[in-house]
Amino acid sequence: MEQRVTLITLGVSDLARSKAFYEALGWQGQEVQETVFFQAGGLGLVLWGRDKLAADCGLEAGKEPPAFGGIVLAHNVRDDSEVDDLLAAARAAGGTVTKPAALNEIGFYSAAFTDPDGHAWEIAHNPGFPLAEDGTLTLPDFGRP
Amino acid sequence: MEQRVTLITLGVSDLARSKAFYEALGWQGQEVQETVFFQAGGLGLVLWGRDKLAADCGLEAGKEPPAFGGIVLAHNVRDDSEVDDLLAAARAAGGTVTKPAALNEIGFYSAAFTDPDGHAWEIAHNPGFPLAEDGTLTLPDFGRP
Repeated sequence: MEQRVTLITLGVSDLARSKAFYEALGWQGQEVQETVFFQAGGLGLVLWGRDKLAADCGLEAGKEPPAFGGIVLAHNVRDDSEVDDLLAAARAAGGTVTKPAALNEIGFYSAAFTDPDGHAWEIAHNPGFPLAEDGTLTLPDFGRP
Repeated sequence: MEQRVTLITLGVSDLARSKAFYEALGWQGQEVQETVFFQAGGLGLVLWGRDKLAADCGLEAGKEPPAFGGIVLAHNVRDDSEVDDLLAAARAAGGTVTKPAALNEIGFYSAAFTDPDGHAWEIAHNPGFPLAEDGTLTLPDFGRP
């Protein structure tokens, strides 16, 4: 298995609402057959009906999305003010701020919000994880533990 | 907000078990402060304690991981036999096959498994989504709906 991810699919309960949320944050995608595909760097971020997504993987969707699904997506930015700006945009678009922007224990500035289905995003300015010009991340060499 | 993801963090209940699972699939990462970082294309896939991850986002972890967390990661490969091989490797590593390999409704060959914490992966050979040499995906132009 190569070390890569091709698609991240978010199960959603209202496709139009979720599409509008990400579009309000500036994303642009393609809607095809009740599915929205966003190009996100070298992979696709996809919105698809939660029940269909679960069934497609042979899993039970459950009645309600859990408070915490177990996966967090991080979007790192290049300075602290971008964290504030993006958090404000997410709130304005209908997201829920679950962690106000602050310096965390490690010492970098971050915040978190959930999208309309409760999918969690962390927004961070972490100088220890510098981004390339195109936004890709190459992990630092942490050295031997 | 740029259309990109910096990190995908999987909340796990037993870091050593999860690290061993992904290593058995061929991944190699760095363990630092009870966190495992894998370089995955232009982003990082991270394993971190489920309770710590939830708390870091201001969310309640809940007692048990849900049957379906709401997000599916897809790993696309280049031919059908790779789907079979990877599924067998995931089963051997301790994953749970939730969807046996088969042609899906769209007509491509895919399967799904969950990792030790129930995080869902779809494995697919989708000729409609050709991969670049480096494994990155550029979504096709689906045309106007």
